[in-house]
Amino acid sequence: MSDVKKVVLAYSGGLDTSVIVKWLQETYACEVVTFTADIGQGEEVEPARTKAQALGVKEIYIEDLREEFVRDYVYPMFRANTIYEGEYLLGTSIARPLIAKRLIEIANETGADAISHGATGKGNDQVRFELGAYALKPGVKVIAPWREWDLNSREKLMAYCEDNDIPVDFSKSKKKSPYSMDANLLHISYEGGILEDPWAEAEEEMWRWSVSPEAAPDQPTYIELTYEKGDVVAIDGESLKPHEVLAKLNKLGGDNGIGRLDIVENRYVGMKSRGCYETPGGTILLRAHRAIESLTLDREAAHLKDELMPKYAKVIYNGYWWSPERRMLQAAIDETQEFVNGVVRMKLYKGNAIVVGRQSEQSLFDESIATFEDDAGAYDQKDAEGFIKLNALRLRIAAGKGRSAS
Amino acid sequence: MSDVKKVVLAYSGGLDTSVIVKWLQETYACEVVTFTADIGQGEEVEPARTKAQALGVKEIYIEDLREEFVRDYVYPMFRANTIYEGEYLLGTSIARPLIAKRLIEIANETGADAISHGATGKGNDQVRFELGAYALKPGVKVIAPWREWDLNSREKLMAYCEDNDIPVDFSKSKKKSPYSMDANLLHISYEGGILEDPWAEAEEEMWRWSVSPEAAPDQPTYIELTYEKGDVVAIDGESLKPHEVLAKLNKLGGDNGIGRLDIVENRYVGMKSRGCYETPGGTILLRAHRAIESLTLDREAAHLKDELMPKYAKVIYNGYWWSPERRMLQAAIDETQEFVNGVVRMKLYKGNAIVVGRQSEQSLFDESIATFEDDAGAYDQKDAEGFIKLNALRLRIAAGKGRSAS
Amino acid sequence: MSDVKKVVLAYSGGLDTSVIVKWLQETYACEVVTFTADIGQGEEVEPARTKAQALGVKEIYIEDLREEFVRDYVYPMFRANTIYEGEYLLGTSIARPLIAKRLIEIANETGADAISHGATGKGNDQVRFELGAYALKPGVKVIAPWREWDLNSREKLMAYCEDNDIPVDFSKSKKKSPYSMDANLLHISYEGGILEDPWAEAEEEMWRWSVSPEAAPDQPTYIELTYEKGDVVAIDGESLKPHEVLAKLNKLGGDNGIGRLDIVENRYVGMKSRGCYETPGGTILLRAHRAIESLTLDREAAHLKDELMPKYAKVIYNGYWWSPERRMLQAAIDETQEFVNGVVRMKLYKGNAIVVGRQSEQSLFDESIATFEDDAGAYDQKDAEGFIKLNALRLRIAAGKGRSAS
Amino acid sequence: MSDVKKVVLAYSGGLDTSVIVKWLQETYACEVVTFTADIGQGEEVEPARTKAQALGVKEIYIEDLREEFVRDYVYPMFRANTIYEGEYLLGTSIARPLIAKRLIEIANETGADAISHGATGKGNDQVRFELGAYALKPGVKVIAPWREWDLNSREKLMAYCEDNDIPVDFSKSKKKSPYSMDANLLHISYEGGILEDPWAEAEEEMWRWSVSPEAAPDQPTYIELTYEKGDVVAIDGESLKPHEVLAKLNKLGGDNGIGRLDIVENRYVGMKSRGCYETPGGTILLRAHRAIESLTLDREAAHLKDELMPKYAKVIYNGYWWSPERRMLQAAIDETQEFVNGVVRMKLYKGNAIVVGRQSEQSLFDESIATFEDDAGAYDQKDAEGFIKLNALRLRIAAGKGRSAS
Repeated sequence: MSDVKKVVLAYSGGLDTSVIVKWLQETYACEVVTFTADIGQGEEVEPARTKAQALGVKEIYIEDLREEFVRDYVYPMFRANTIYEGEYLLGTSIARPLIAKRLIEIANETGADAISHGATGKGNDQVRFELGAYALKPGVKVIAPWREWDLNSREKLMAYCEDNDIPVDFSKSKKKSPYSMDANLLHISYEGGILEDPWAEAEEEMWRWSVSPEAAPDQPTYIELTYEKGDVVAIDGESLKPHEVLAKLNKLGGDNGIGRLDIVENRYVGMKSRGCYETPGGTILLRAHRAIESLTLDREAAHLKDELMPKYAKVIYNGYWWSPERRMLQAAIDETQEFVNGVVRMKLYKGNAIVVGRQSEQSLFDESIATFEDDAGAYDQKDAEGFIKLNALRLRIAAGKGRSAS
Repeated sequence: MSDVKKVVLAYSGGLDTSVIVKWLQETYACEVVTFTADIGQGEEVEPARTKAQALGVKEIYIEDLREEFVRDYVYPMFRANTIYEGEYLLGTSIARPLIAKRLIEIANETGADAISHGATGKGNDQVRFELGAYALKPGVKVIAPWREWDLNSREKLMAYCEDNDIPVDFSKSKKKSPYSMDANLLHISYEGGILEDPWAEAEEEMWRWSVSPEAAPDQPTYIELTYEKGDVVAIDGESLKPHEVLAKLNKLGGDNGIGRLDIVENRYVGMKSRGCYETPGGTILLRAHRAIESLTLDREAAHLKDELMPKYAKVIYNGYWWSPERRMLQAAIDETQEFVNGVVRMKLYKGNAIVVGRQSEQSLFDESIATFEDDAGAYDQKDAEGFIKLNALRLRIAAGKGRSAS
Repeated sequence: MSDVKKVVLAYSGGLDTSVIVKWLQETYACEVVTFTADIGQGEEVEPARTKAQALGVKEIYIEDLREEFVRDYVYPMFRANTIYEGEYLLGTSIARPLIAKRLIEIANETGADAISHGATGKGNDQVRFELGAYALKPGVKVIAPWREWDLNSREKLMAYCEDNDIPVDFSKSKKKSPYSMDANLLHISYEGGILEDPWAEAEEEMWRWSVSPEAAPDQPTYIELTYEKGDVVAIDGESLKPHEVLAKLNKLGGDNGIGRLDIVENRYVGMKSRGCYETPGGTILLRAHRAIESLTLDREAAHLKDELMPKYAKVIYNGYWWSPERRMLQAAIDETQEFVNGVVRMKLYKGNAIVVGRQSEQSLFDESIATFEDDAGAYDQKDAEGFIKLNALRLRIAAGKGRSAS
Repeated sequence: MSDVKKVVLAYSGGLDTSVIVKWLQETYACEVVTFTADIGQGEEVEPARTKAQALGVKEIYIEDLREEFVRDYVYPMFRANTIYEGEYLLGTSIARPLIAKRLIEIANETGADAISHGATGKGNDQVRFELGAYALKPGVKVIAPWREWDLNSREKLMAYCEDNDIPVDFSKSKKKSPYSMDANLLHISYEGGILEDPWAEAEEEMWRWSVSPEAAPDQPTYIELTYEKGDVVAIDGESLKPHEVLAKLNKLGGDNGIGRLDIVENRYVGMKSRGCYETPGGTILLRAHRAIESLTLDREAAHLKDELMPKYAKVIYNGYWWSPERRMLQAAIDETQEFVNGVVRMKLYKGNAIVVGRQSEQSLFDESIATFEDDAGAYDQKDAEGFIKLNALRLRIAAGKGRSAS
């Protein structure tokens, strides 16, 4: 083992990361600093303090990062209408860069020379944590216990706990579940268990954040989202901070059966995996943002955004938030959002998030031009002939030279 | 007026195109050939014969193009998971190339030197018809009455009918509607009327192909779609032709409140317009195709498809089906579909088309690799370290040279 | 003719635009304001004053825009390594947005309601002028005489001059040439004449800015270009303004036979045309910029720039400088240039502009990592195995399922 | 060491791979099969037989792959006008997939369970060999001695030779050089030595395939290349096979000082490296292919190719020739080449490969449309007004709503 003096661990307070605290102390004979963040996962973070203390940790960081998380990560991502592989709203991916950043900042504050995390060696999260860490502190040592130790089964972990006096009720903080779960203000995810068969339908009892469409109210809920520069700043006229917006939309969406997703996705490490996600607020946000852009964004800017989006999604999914290419894409995206202001009206009903109206003082929709009625010269229909003729010219020349177009 | 001898008109049998028959005969003193196609718009096409005869037309083409339409246009488009501006399934756009092709083929058969259509000078359809026509017959003359005449209001049209003995009940073939509508097997669209205010919610009575989610059954419907090379070939085990698949999915989707869309879109001619669409079958197809691809398509092929898709959608939306760039994109897309075989199981419920299972003999999902359980060497978690280290190298070098990543 | 009171004309002082002054005065019975700019075309602009006065023009604008041209248009374009269709350095395209901007600003200052230019109806320049004008002043009237009048041959123009007392020696300002030419600090272009046969080799006497490689000196010239944030700020250590840099590189390049180009290009209006170009300084700049980026730019940022470049080139070529999509692309490009600092050493010799060295304090080249010699742990070769294994995983799974990769 | 029975080695006959034969026999106690290919590297391959025999190898493959190499790898790549990072013609990258394929085919023929190569752990070639091998035979074992052994310096290698009776004159097959070199019909490359300082100019004596521009003849050489479907099939009217074309162009280019390149590039493994390349024939081919395309390819197809090219180049550079995404891109590229037929005339002179003429029966260049002279209606200049007006519409609406375009 290399010479590590102090390591900052992303500590959830749960069983796995508690084992990691012990394992790090023993294996590396180093001091462990724990870092526990509230990013809206819906569990108390304060209990992590006592647990960490019980494990002999002296430097304990517990922080509420919800506002920063939504303001600086979730919101910029939604400006791009980001979806990975046509479906996934990147709920897990977008939380990792912030955790990586704080791990490194705390390492710098505490004089630690290493960081550690509880992600396995098969998933994307290890990549996201570590790419972030290396980008922010190139000489940092990263310890990924799941890739190093031999505790890679539930039984071995339990035995380790017993041997090391780690109270197993640590695990009660998460309700016993057959699924591997991850949650933050944007989403909760489920993997493993019966989901490993992609033909098997997810059980109703698995879902935690939303009622089923069947169980949702029979009456629709209407809401109005106010946008400024591409970000939601108010719901139904009430000004809210970014994380308050998302929390409220999660409640509204979840109550109306909105935001469930069941997909097979391609991991960066090369395999396919099946995951289920609940993203109630995010699902509403995506629709609404497209709606306000549809009114206020120039066509070619919108199309260029659409062409760049898959790349941007991939950059985030693969863990390259802290990279030059992400900053480059963000600069292009943010450049377009200045006039993305206005109000979107939505109807939420049994799984559906439906846009029913949109308005903006910066609207580029021009009724006088688009109308089917006679208009007074705002648009000369005869211009269309020249437009078509010149756009057709290359096709006509080719056909005239005997090339078949069909 | 230039010297036109015979013109082939895309003739619906409705009032507008009946006026066009007369207007062409008078204005150009030419013979008119009518062409009426059943592409699944849900109206009888045979009555167009009598109407055309009454207008003195001698060469009358009436054809059932439903199978060709879905097989050669809709299906290839869905292989690309095509959506325009993140929302629109291109229901109108995809029907135009086929009409343009038949207009030109009929012109060649009948010795006509011109074609004509009833699209206005403000919309996309004129562009799509005419680009197709020019690409397929470069010397053809195109007559677009709405850009030429001065009958550009309902009143003037009616007066023209009266002056020319065109029976106004011609218009009864379409139920009186305040909306401009267009329909084919893929969708029905609505524009105009109160929709010209993008803040106004569409009225329930406008929608024709689907019940509202509220009015849909309280019990879900489960279906299984069988794919071969990216195309649906059977529903619930029953083999169907492409247009039968789409017709059946339209019924299933419409009955379950699926496929309504209300958007503001950017037209090729430069303005924004608001449209409402019902695409019940197409909405199901899009989800299902992504699901079968998620299991059977290589990651990088899938991502490249996603990057190309917005361009492909734009090519179709703008009317360039009969172009070298469309063929080029199609070649890339079709290359990927060889192994897109298998079955997708979906749940249809009150507006939701939910993927609940997918299976394939060509599945690239490998349970033994993706599992959270201990595995026997199919995947060595230690490989992840090297993977991350080398992917991080450029970021570490940059950070090491003092560049800030945040 | 519509009601035009005052029109600002892009006036070269040559025969064609002098005819336009007269024709505008007569046809529109309006006042004409002339605008003549020095953008480095290599001709005196001051003589335009007397000529305009002789034509009765009262408001005459003559301006030296060389610095602004290079600083705000040429330099931003070169940051993207911009080339159209793999060859063309956009010398004509990049000058148009500046002219359009000044035409509109002068229209605003002088209370003019229209602008006019001398570009023909077949070329790209009309599009570039007019798109710029409309984007900057949406209600402006644009008068394009070449699309309106019937003076479309040399003979008719001459007759018009005679009839209207326009001194034909106006045309002497340009040496008599069989080619249509355009020049500014970035390039000089040739079209027409024997070039209309793409098989015909351009004559040696056509070229004006460069000697032939054969006639260039037998000794190479070495130069060093200093970059700051992606722009050249000094040559051989001497600080220069942007337009001074370009002028000096034109001299150095031209003397060494550098920068000739002979291509067939695709115009935005739909046809192919053959053009010859001399871009001595630009040719050097393109090579040098790539060289300094090769040392200082992150790999993925560089690759993303390369993917965006063709789009950016097309935007400029087609005349959309003053568009949201150009600003969006520029934001992405400029974001990457912060560390593009350093010195490039080049050898100029008989048509060749050869990079022979590059250095930078922000260099990301790390000799200790790249070296073939034994190194002490900066890079662990064993990491490569995991890197390859995980990158190969998707390919192995596919092959394992029986898919042939060849 | 895992249980390897037989390994196929890419064997050059040089010192390094001879050491590898011995090392494999000893370390893995396995049989070694050698595979030596003539891909135009300019050295005899037959002597490898005696050397392999001397090392106790029983199964020896020696093959002339020059035709297959150029026909199936180099030519398809040039159809895309492929360049990596704006400069590099991928000479090394494109040879690896063929070697990987033959290694695997031979492994299948000889019943070998492993392959091995002599690429180091820092370069791209290990990745290219191994990705290809895994894609073609997913269960193959790959042995990369340079990542495993401790012979990583010249001294240790020599000591190993002495200890194992490997004749050191093995190394004489390559002239002693301070550079790491690689050659095939497309190029020869140089790395290491003084090139590790990117500011240092390459020495004249380093270059092997070309004279310097200074030393090239004072008279230009003119050649004509005949294209069929995007590939050169004849030079100066003489039909040649693909590898004969490339060999002849290498001679012509090299004699005229054409094809030297000196760059810093970004390796897939994360570092920058400096390389010098001689690609005489390839440099001519790239120019010529663009020229024949400029005449025969549709504009939008050409532009789409340009947008896809950087991605295609990256796929090849990174070693993903045997991947679904490469096949997908190739399908798109090949779709466009049907009409890329004709003749390109070039002038070769002291480092310059200049296109001076191009002609084609499939030319889309239409003199009657492009001409500056009066024409008879092939193109109506008035169409340009409508074309510009509608293209400007979105910009005018935005400006009309008060958005500043500048």
